[in-house]
Amino acid sequence: MSRKWVYLFREGNATMRDLLGGKGAGLAEMTRSGVPVPPGFTITTEACNAYYDAGKKLPDGAWEQVLDGMKDIEKQTGRKFGDPKNPLLVSVRSGAKFSMPGMMDTVLNLGLNAETKAGIAKQTKNERFAADAYRRFIQLFGKIVMGVEGEKFEHVMDRTKGKTRQDTDLTVDELEKIADEFKKIIKKETGEAFPNDPYDQLKKAVMAVFGSWFGKRAVDYRRVNKISDTLGTAVNVQAMVFGNMGSDSATGVAFTRNPSTGEHEIFGEYLVNAQGEDVVAGIRTPQHISKLKQEMPEVYGQFADIAKKLEAHYKDVQDVEFTIERGKLYMLQTRSGKRTGAAAVKVAVDMVKEGVIDKATAVQRVEPQMLDQLLHPMLDPQARKKLKAITQGLPASPGAASGMVVFDPDTAEERAKAGEKVILVRVETAPEDFHGMIVAQAILTARGGMTSHAAVVARGIGKPCVAGAGALHIDYKAQTVSVGDVTVKAGEWITLDGGTGEVFVGQIPTVRPTLSGDFATLMEWADEFRTIGVLANADIPRDAEQARKFGAEGIGLCRTEHMFFEGTRIDAVREMIVADTLEGRKKALAKIEPLQQGDFEGIFKAMDGFPVIVRLLDPPLHEFLPHGKDEIKALAAQLGVTAKKLTARIEGLKEANPMLGFRGCRLGILYPEITEMQANAIFKATVAVKKKGVKVHPEVMIPLVATLAEFAMQEEIVRRVADEVMKATKTKFDYKVGTMIELPRAALQAAEIAKRAEFFSFGTNDLTQTTFGLSRDDAGKFLPLYVEQKLLPDDPFQSIDQTGVGELVKIGVERGRATRSDLEVGVCGEHGGDPASVIFFHKAGLNYVSCSPFRVPIARLAAAHAALAEKSAIAKDK
Amino acid sequence: MSRKWVYLFREGNATMRDLLGGKGAGLAEMTRSGVPVPPGFTITTEACNAYYDAGKKLPDGAWEQVLDGMKDIEKQTGRKFGDPKNPLLVSVRSGAKFSMPGMMDTVLNLGLNAETKAGIAKQTKNERFAADAYRRFIQLFGKIVMGVEGEKFEHVMDRTKGKTRQDTDLTVDELEKIADEFKKIIKKETGEAFPNDPYDQLKKAVMAVFGSWFGKRAVDYRRVNKISDTLGTAVNVQAMVFGNMGSDSATGVAFTRNPSTGEHEIFGEYLVNAQGEDVVAGIRTPQHISKLKQEMPEVYGQFADIAKKLEAHYKDVQDVEFTIERGKLYMLQTRSGKRTGAAAVKVAVDMVKEGVIDKATAVQRVEPQMLDQLLHPMLDPQARKKLKAITQGLPASPGAASGMVVFDPDTAEERAKAGEKVILVRVETAPEDFHGMIVAQAILTARGGMTSHAAVVARGIGKPCVAGAGALHIDYKAQTVSVGDVTVKAGEWITLDGGTGEVFVGQIPTVRPTLSGDFATLMEWADEFRTIGVLANADIPRDAEQARKFGAEGIGLCRTEHMFFEGTRIDAVREMIVADTLEGRKKALAKIEPLQQGDFEGIFKAMDGFPVIVRLLDPPLHEFLPHGKDEIKALAAQLGVTAKKLTARIEGLKEANPMLGFRGCRLGILYPEITEMQANAIFKATVAVKKKGVKVHPEVMIPLVATLAEFAMQEEIVRRVADEVMKATKTKFDYKVGTMIELPRAALQAAEIAKRAEFFSFGTNDLTQTTFGLSRDDAGKFLPLYVEQKLLPDDPFQSIDQTGVGELVKIGVERGRATRSDLEVGVCGEHGGDPASVIFFHKAGLNYVSCSPFRVPIARLAAAHAALAEKSAIAKDK
Repeated sequence: MSRKWVYLFREGNATMRDLLGGKGAGLAEMTRSGVPVPPGFTITTEACNAYYDAGKKLPDGAWEQVLDGMKDIEKQTGRKFGDPKNPLLVSVRSGAKFSMPGMMDTVLNLGLNAETKAGIAKQTKNERFAADAYRRFIQLFGKIVMGVEGEKFEHVMDRTKGKTRQDTDLTVDELEKIADEFKKIIKKETGEAFPNDPYDQLKKAVMAVFGSWFGKRAVDYRRVNKISDTLGTAVNVQAMVFGNMGSDSATGVAFTRNPSTGEHEIFGEYLVNAQGEDVVAGIRTPQHISKLKQEMPEVYGQFADIAKKLEAHYKDVQDVEFTIERGKLYMLQTRSGKRTGAAAVKVAVDMVKEGVIDKATAVQRVEPQMLDQLLHPMLDPQARKKLKAITQGLPASPGAASGMVVFDPDTAEERAKAGEKVILVRVETAPEDFHGMIVAQAILTARGGMTSHAAVVARGIGKPCVAGAGALHIDYKAQTVSVGDVTVKAGEWITLDGGTGEVFVGQIPTVRPTLSGDFATLMEWADEFRTIGVLANADIPRDAEQARKFGAEGIGLCRTEHMFFEGTRIDAVREMIVADTLEGRKKALAKIEPLQQGDFEGIFKAMDGFPVIVRLLDPPLHEFLPHGKDEIKALAAQLGVTAKKLTARIEGLKEANPMLGFRGCRLGILYPEITEMQANAIFKATVAVKKKGVKVHPEVMIPLVATLAEFAMQEEIVRRVADEVMKATKTKFDYKVGTMIELPRAALQAAEIAKRAEFFSFGTNDLTQTTFGLSRDDAGKFLPLYVEQKLLPDDPFQSIDQTGVGELVKIGVERGRATRSDLEVGVCGEHGGDPASVIFFHKAGLNYVSCSPFRVPIARLAAAHAALAEKSAIAKDK
Repeated sequence: MSRKWVYLFREGNATMRDLLGGKGAGLAEMTRSGVPVPPGFTITTEACNAYYDAGKKLPDGAWEQVLDGMKDIEKQTGRKFGDPKNPLLVSVRSGAKFSMPGMMDTVLNLGLNAETKAGIAKQTKNERFAADAYRRFIQLFGKIVMGVEGEKFEHVMDRTKGKTRQDTDLTVDELEKIADEFKKIIKKETGEAFPNDPYDQLKKAVMAVFGSWFGKRAVDYRRVNKISDTLGTAVNVQAMVFGNMGSDSATGVAFTRNPSTGEHEIFGEYLVNAQGEDVVAGIRTPQHISKLKQEMPEVYGQFADIAKKLEAHYKDVQDVEFTIERGKLYMLQTRSGKRTGAAAVKVAVDMVKEGVIDKATAVQRVEPQMLDQLLHPMLDPQARKKLKAITQGLPASPGAASGMVVFDPDTAEERAKAGEKVILVRVETAPEDFHGMIVAQAILTARGGMTSHAAVVARGIGKPCVAGAGALHIDYKAQTVSVGDVTVKAGEWITLDGGTGEVFVGQIPTVRPTLSGDFATLMEWADEFRTIGVLANADIPRDAEQARKFGAEGIGLCRTEHMFFEGTRIDAVREMIVADTLEGRKKALAKIEPLQQGDFEGIFKAMDGFPVIVRLLDPPLHEFLPHGKDEIKALAAQLGVTAKKLTARIEGLKEANPMLGFRGCRLGILYPEITEMQANAIFKATVAVKKKGVKVHPEVMIPLVATLAEFAMQEEIVRRVADEVMKATKTKFDYKVGTMIELPRAALQAAEIAKRAEFFSFGTNDLTQTTFGLSRDDAGKFLPLYVEQKLLPDDPFQSIDQTGVGELVKIGVERGRATRSDLEVGVCGEHGGDPASVIFFHKAGLNYVSCSPFRVPIARLAAAHAALAEKSAIAKDK
């Protein structure tokens, strides 16, 4: 007896993915659990391998088993393959263990020829349907099975339709003529006639599925995704059923729960006397599933039972396709139902309450990224449909907002004070635009990537942002922004969707999701599982409070420079920079110190009981100076220097590569008085809030360190100031001094640096820039192409490059801990809020991740996922 | 009996450095070999340690042994310590195993007090000398031994001298008054009286030397240089001798061979009736040593014998100090004589011929860096003395030159064509200035560091360059360059010394050293020892020829972009960049291809038999475009586009951080047609020269690779073009495709990249920039301070950072070779010509270094040093 190459659906089950492929195992599982599925069978992946071993021939006995399978289908459907009167039609689909693009798709209506087509026309009483099905079958079979270029067929279609008609306008005659022409094309291109014999069709289709396993695209896909060539693909052959066989037939799709809200109710649509594609095409308006209850109560009852059963079986919301053929219900597919973030949260929590799943499963059911929707306003879906975006930039910071266009931060501030809603539109933003960004509803830039200044700041303060919308032409002088023919003037309304990057002219209402109790419950559960801490990047007290609300366990990165732009303090900062003596700088710094101290007090209060990591001044000084001629003149007058001198100073600070220039701890090394002032502000604030009963844990972070010597030099200043403040105030307080690890050299030298640094915080933005030699501000020119052409799996500024930058993170952690076993290690780059990166950091053994306040819930959930995945991996190993 | 704490000079020898310190061992060795050295003794380093162990007390028996030592000195000199009539004076010096700044220096004339001073005055018949010696002694003793701030004494000196007089104008009376005042200051500051008792002076001085071992500066120095605290310092006590005791006394310095030329002749100067400091002060003009032969033939004979003996003993040119006291010759010091590069080479080769040293020693005797002097013109030393530099920049490329100031490359070219000598003066240079640089005598820039564009290019083409002369104010409009009050107009002469960074107004004659046969001999010997290859970085045929002359074994880096600026080809390059269609770019590239091919043919011919590594286009495209308004207008007209469009394109190519931007292989990935054109030019040139009988080994290098995918994508194009050229020309040729490793990620991913890359070339300039996060163009603001404050041991752009960047090099080599054991690995950064770096690369196992043609001999010699050092380390291990 030959080997078993064919399994009827009722012979398999869900565990047989290796042998039957994903699709085959799924159909078997449904059949096995008593759901009415159109009968069919699966040719195994082993048959595929045997096919190649035998030199592309079906192995012994396989075809005989296929024929037996067909007999079984005929028996169950009461139809006969190739019978003109009551023809059985089947679908043939590939189905490997993993879903794989690049392999043969589906061939429907296999078994059609001139005779069976006539039979179908009679049975469905729809000649046009039969003719069109036949036309489609030839086209699909010719292209997929026989390898004829698709364009050749489309050309015939186009010619027949002319310029104005749609596919649906073609008459029966025309469709038949087209079918004939298709056959001729196939003959001409392949030298073979189109097969009229259904069994011939079937055999060719099966061989084509096997052949597609080593098609170029499938092989490439496996290479990239590291899938073994030896898995092979299975082939599924299944009876076609028709929902268009009269008013007792129908077809539809449904969810076992509401995919928008998560409500526990069947949610779906169907069409009477129709085929699946009619539902999709939207020519007829489908009816709500509740109508089915009235029209076919019995079938509906059966359907509802099945839906319930499937959900119970799979323990998840199911998205099902069904067809009713002459009053008989068939389930064509069931799969986990896609849902909104809100629905995901509600379903997960409900199912725990219902006892269907446990907490760990519930936590794992919600993709961290989905929470984004819950935390930001969205465009009203109805209102949105009516408008077309004028352009699309990068979805740099989620949420949607409408506002009047303004082109500079001062105007933004002024009009916002007057109670108007504005959107700040800039070619790109700089730190000096901060006061305008914070009052705007949203930010739109023409240049810059996902981690440009605008994007980072916007995410930090929770404002929607569309960045790098390159098609925009912004004319500051004319106060207009235009795309193609569309020009928007200052003061006119636009709407941004920061989640998609779309830009609309006019005002679109937004809906703000409310955070449900379920959300809080899920987050609590996530916290029960996760082992890595989640802190937030926040620069001002308001953001710190927001971060606490979202569950941040401290501030992982407080960038002191953002405070420099508030109100008039920028004047003192500029005075400091322009001063050419130590005394001059000290005088200016003395003005800044109390202001910084005040800010720190606010942040410490908000973070009562939690650590706050303050990074010392980091950006290049020229970012604080004006560049326009008039602004320079004004500033010169204010500072009492000549415009020439000020210009010279500004020119002197200009850099070829500011990212790699005079910034980070290099500032504090050249101007130790800056470090001194900042340390004073931090520690004086510590003492002030401590006196008010606040539990305060300041940690001072030295940025852009490359050598231990740099760190030591700055650390000495910080510790000296701490001693001075303790002595002067007769107070004791704890504090730590640590460093950013954001240069490759720092990661490599971690063992040295950890001799003095009490904590490391990986600045993965800059580490990515230096490791790749890639400026995030300039990468927009080529990075999208890189991702598109798979030269990189992802934008490394969005999701950490695990092999390159990631290795440096691992090296840094290992070497740092080898020196100092209790070294506190975290990450404060943008990656701290990216789920895949959070999982990586968990594995790398970091103590915490720090991210924008609005990404804290996402990081908490991702951290729980990481811990649970690890747990189940360990369990498997045992 | 107590331990032996004191060794008379005649009891020690050169091997006793641990116990006697470097100085003590040297004095002992001289004494031992029969050279007349003023008698003395050394208190051991063990005594120093015992002093600290005993709580800062001299150990038992030490003082008694010192007294015995003094007795011995008295006996040998016939003088008596503290004897007013014939007083013995001694010097007290510290002397650790390693010479160490920060420790106590020398106290001279110890033993002086009012009485002995009078004795000296009588003996020398020079009351002023005695009074001045006494004043100096008190001052030195007060400051060094008793720790009084030096300023306090200088204040008295200044007050006494008034505004116009020099030290030498002070009268005996004044000097005596000053001495009294000094004593009062000492009493007031220390509470102790200045010790009149010579033994008291001696004891205090010895204790002060020991005390200085743990002085802050000495401890800091040891920390930085990793010298153990437990070594301790020795103290040397030695009789003073006086060359100013009449016309039968003299003092002088001499070399055993001419330190300028290396000629085998005693070379030196002396002064009759004078002290050593008189020679140094230059008040009287010393006489040539040959005069001594006439004046004191006997002493001279003795001196010549000793000099010969010392040279034979130390097997090297000696720099000796001597004093003749009343007809008796004393040698005060002998040490290896400093010499010019030319002398070093001649002496080394001569000594091998004389049978004094072997070839390996000869090779090791010449510091690689010294060869620089031999390869470049120098300022005429006599003429130079007469002028003062107006400013000093960085010594960016060695050699000296005079020329008329021009401020732009076009004028430079024009005037050079007219036969004039010009120096190109720019704020900074860019690739588009190349045609002006190549015709200029030298280049001067106000901005940029040792590895700025100007510096790198100048070194490559062997032109002197002073870079980053920050004090210069260059006004292109006014066509002037000024420093302070000095203003130089276009067309006026200036002179640069690229070896020192000095800038002079006017013309100074230069002398060009001729390369002697000895130089070639030494280089041959070096090649016998070295195991690492030396290639050159050269971009044009002329440089390639120069490189061959200097012994380069191939081209390690041929930067194709430098060719882009020659003549009118820049027009085609610009046309290519501005084109916005593939066709437009291809059309422009077609114009460039034959020109590039011609260049490659020239380079291949010059390198007949040796490999040539051609790097594909690397710099950001905006470097090729003009930035001035008028230039843009002209170019727009030429290209037939609007100035607006051209401006937009230029703006679009502007980058925040060009170093990390759209450059390197990113260009070829976005515009594969550029790679295609360059590959065509390389391979067509290969075929063309091959047909002429040239042995050609092209290697194509892909720059700025971060991932294997990038490399693979570019490699595929190169290999395809190679196949096409072979097919079209029916020729076979060998070639390699490899990559620059210049990003941290590439080093980390070396195992992956080596799967396809056949060779690696470390681009350590860029690797240093990215590993440190340090732009070489901007580092000038803080890097000098870093080196000065020892935050970094060296400028990492000049000498490779061995721990940080070096680790990445090692990782890259290891991982690359793990994948491909025969991987060819080299370095083509500027470090390839830095001796310390060459030694590091040798150790790291690189196959070759590549450097500027003018540094090839230096690299060859350094490579020999590396191999010899390794050999002797292995020998030691055995």
